[in-house]
Amino acid sequence: MVVSLNCDMGESYGHWRFGDDAGIMPSVDCANIACGFHAGDPMTMLRTVELALREGKRIGAHPSLPDREGFGRREMRLSPDELRSAFIYQIGALAGFARAAGTSLNHVKPHGTIYGMAARDIALATAMAEAAKTFDLPLFGMAGTLHEQAATAVGAQFVGEFFADLTYSAAGELIIPRSHSAVDIAKAAARLERALRERKVEAVDGTVLDISFQTVCIHSDPPNARDVAAAMRRVLDAVQR
Amino acid sequence: MVVSLNCDMGESYGHWRFGDDAGIMPSVDCANIACGFHAGDPMTMLRTVELALREGKRIGAHPSLPDREGFGRREMRLSPDELRSAFIYQIGALAGFARAAGTSLNHVKPHGTIYGMAARDIALATAMAEAAKTFDLPLFGMAGTLHEQAATAVGAQFVGEFFADLTYSAAGELIIPRSHSAVDIAKAAARLERALRERKVEAVDGTVLDISFQTVCIHSDPPNARDVAAAMRRVLDAVQR
Amino acid sequence: MVVSLNCDMGESYGHWRFGDDAGIMPSVDCANIACGFHAGDPMTMLRTVELALREGKRIGAHPSLPDREGFGRREMRLSPDELRSAFIYQIGALAGFARAAGTSLNHVKPHGTIYGMAARDIALATAMAEAAKTFDLPLFGMAGTLHEQAATAVGAQFVGEFFADLTYSAAGELIIPRSHSAVDIAKAAARLERALRERKVEAVDGTVLDISFQTVCIHSDPPNARDVAAAMRRVLDAVQR
Amino acid sequence: MVVSLNCDMGESYGHWRFGDDAGIMPSVDCANIACGFHAGDPMTMLRTVELALREGKRIGAHPSLPDREGFGRREMRLSPDELRSAFIYQIGALAGFARAAGTSLNHVKPHGTIYGMAARDIALATAMAEAAKTFDLPLFGMAGTLHEQAATAVGAQFVGEFFADLTYSAAGELIIPRSHSAVDIAKAAARLERALRERKVEAVDGTVLDISFQTVCIHSDPPNARDVAAAMRRVLDAVQR
Repeated sequence: MVVSLNCDMGESYGHWRFGDDAGIMPSVDCANIACGFHAGDPMTMLRTVELALREGKRIGAHPSLPDREGFGRREMRLSPDELRSAFIYQIGALAGFARAAGTSLNHVKPHGTIYGMAARDIALATAMAEAAKTFDLPLFGMAGTLHEQAATAVGAQFVGEFFADLTYSAAGELIIPRSHSAVDIAKAAARLERALRERKVEAVDGTVLDISFQTVCIHSDPPNARDVAAAMRRVLDAVQR
Repeated sequence: MVVSLNCDMGESYGHWRFGDDAGIMPSVDCANIACGFHAGDPMTMLRTVELALREGKRIGAHPSLPDREGFGRREMRLSPDELRSAFIYQIGALAGFARAAGTSLNHVKPHGTIYGMAARDIALATAMAEAAKTFDLPLFGMAGTLHEQAATAVGAQFVGEFFADLTYSAAGELIIPRSHSAVDIAKAAARLERALRERKVEAVDGTVLDISFQTVCIHSDPPNARDVAAAMRRVLDAVQR
Repeated sequence: MVVSLNCDMGESYGHWRFGDDAGIMPSVDCANIACGFHAGDPMTMLRTVELALREGKRIGAHPSLPDREGFGRREMRLSPDELRSAFIYQIGALAGFARAAGTSLNHVKPHGTIYGMAARDIALATAMAEAAKTFDLPLFGMAGTLHEQAATAVGAQFVGEFFADLTYSAAGELIIPRSHSAVDIAKAAARLERALRERKVEAVDGTVLDISFQTVCIHSDPPNARDVAAAMRRVLDAVQR
Repeated sequence: MVVSLNCDMGESYGHWRFGDDAGIMPSVDCANIACGFHAGDPMTMLRTVELALREGKRIGAHPSLPDREGFGRREMRLSPDELRSAFIYQIGALAGFARAAGTSLNHVKPHGTIYGMAARDIALATAMAEAAKTFDLPLFGMAGTLHEQAATAVGAQFVGEFFADLTYSAAGELIIPRSHSAVDIAKAAARLERALRERKVEAVDGTVLDISFQTVCIHSDPPNARDVAAAMRRVLDAVQR
């Protein structure tokens, strides 16, 4: 199975621009599109779906905690029922735009802080997985964490992610910054190549972690996001040729 | 074809309650469920869909202008593209909850001020009709207005409404209050019976208007909404027996 | 110094009503008015300030976490700077309505979950206290907790609260429900009388806690809130005669 | 009396950036700071107030219609009471940050569509003027329009504006775009110089209009906003030396 490249997109809001979607889209396989809770609005969702389709890409929902001001990057204690319904709402909304464009959704990729919270809380992970299962969509998440356990338990397909532009703690947790600075492309490319060839990644303290994944995630907001995307594409194509 | 009874529901928000949904649901055929823009939130939508299904009712989307504070009852100048995408977002979100409950949507019924605005502006009416058409759903609207003209033009099914608990101007326009006081049930029942038998309604100035409709709308928020619903149900059943 | 009676008010939002403000206002000394983040909106704030002034009451700001859908009752991880600025924003906004009505604010009373979070986190407590100090207003809080410690440290006046309509854990923490059911007035009156005479309250497990307070808090949303208010007023007047 | 230069600022929101505030601030006299309804949030307001103070500038409130997604640039029908209270809320909130920074507000400058709506509707203009008067602040507006008439009627000071980076219709109305492209600096400088020397401006159709003003407004979002600001500063300084 070929490892895909996915990127969070459609994270503008109203008059505010965010992320180099047009520059990144050609390099990725899957666009994770914001659904209006941390970013995105109906017009942005419509345009991002259309952009992805013009480039022949697969579309996924990128649902979040309901915190636009904090960009979904502040911890927020929703009940599992609240989280599941918040995700159904967001996935459904994006599915509407997919339908309007004559296509359908490919996957669900949770955004920001809830991604990490759910890796530590089985009830939250289950809520996310149930929402994905409602739409018969695979859930993107961290292999070996509660993400995978919850998806398996509810019968949702699970797709493990490797994060090419983030760092890992020794415990295997992602270190998610509030905003992204420029990515060291050479380092990211080397990490990705090792990940693809050996299924290993070096944590910030030097620990070498085993990782399992079928997709690689990058972000749209580092200043050099377009070049990161192109470089990761080249690594994926070279290793998987 | 049997004339149905529809009611706007799911118009609570967060901790705030609105409308006697449980009291009205048994009397209606179709629940128009708020989609989060003027009222409703994911948990409320989930619960309202479940309530409707338990009672064996049909579910429609009740999308609005994006104005929660004004309950969708303040005029707001969206472009047709903004309106269409706002409606696709809302209908899609509710379709997600329908799917989660094992059912699908039955219709689209626009909420509040945009309903009236679209009756006077073909571009807005077309935007609404296109959103309904995207989901292959019939659009509820006022027969003989731009609602019907737009639906016909874009190939969406159209279902004309009669408003049992609102009054009409001599020009045939609805008079939509910001909040509803108690409905005079005897008067409303008489109006509905005449409407069903003669397809005529008396405007506030005494003018008698011809009307065309296949569904009858009531609201959930008059203090006596439950009794209004039951009374309208009885009229419909009696006349259509 | 006379112990006062305060109540959270102005917690309606847009078309949604919440709390029996008109019924409670005559019984209290201080109205803690919601500032738009968990509840309240400009019109509601304007009207609540006017209601309080007509009844000759003191007005305080009742700021919250930015979570209208969760009514400020869901934990949310703001940074101390975010919290301080969120409180300055809300207190400033209410101060505007006080000014419009020819008066000024009397105090700051944090709302909901942040109240409890700040009792366990000195950085959050300090942020709240600094916001109160910015306006030279006393901070209402739980005596003996980080609320008091932070207020003292930043030089803000501190006013300890006793909660007549909530229960306490053995550790002296408030047990805050998501919504309030009817209060047992006899029990609440007895608790208040004991609190006033002995500065003691019995926790849910029977432990007797020492408490210190200069104001008594009640809520506007139990079904019998008006009667609770009147009863607490009578206890206060009787004991403090 | 010296004509001042003012600019709309603090129009970022959450993680989204907007406008070159740091580049423009040195050139202006007055910063009109967004108050959270079309743009701005508590942290952005705090930082923008601090930036203005570091540069020794005067601070004004820049209130708007409640439409963040539309950036206050979509017409929205608030009642005069709703508008007045929305403005009091926003001005009060910013006044809180001014207080936190040890200063106070200098003026009120309405934002976006409501600016134009109020020039055509005396009830809306009056609501805005009353809000400014509540804080004893001058209202920035278009001289000779209902802005000035309303301010005079309610006893608020009025300060007429000339828009250096917008065009005027033959009727003297501003043409406000949804987003700003690069300003032709030479043309804008020439227009400003003529306006300062002759109190005349040429409308888009060539009509020459008489204008009255004591302040000149520019915007922060054209791509060359910083250079526009510096150029307008030079014109003002040269003509007023």
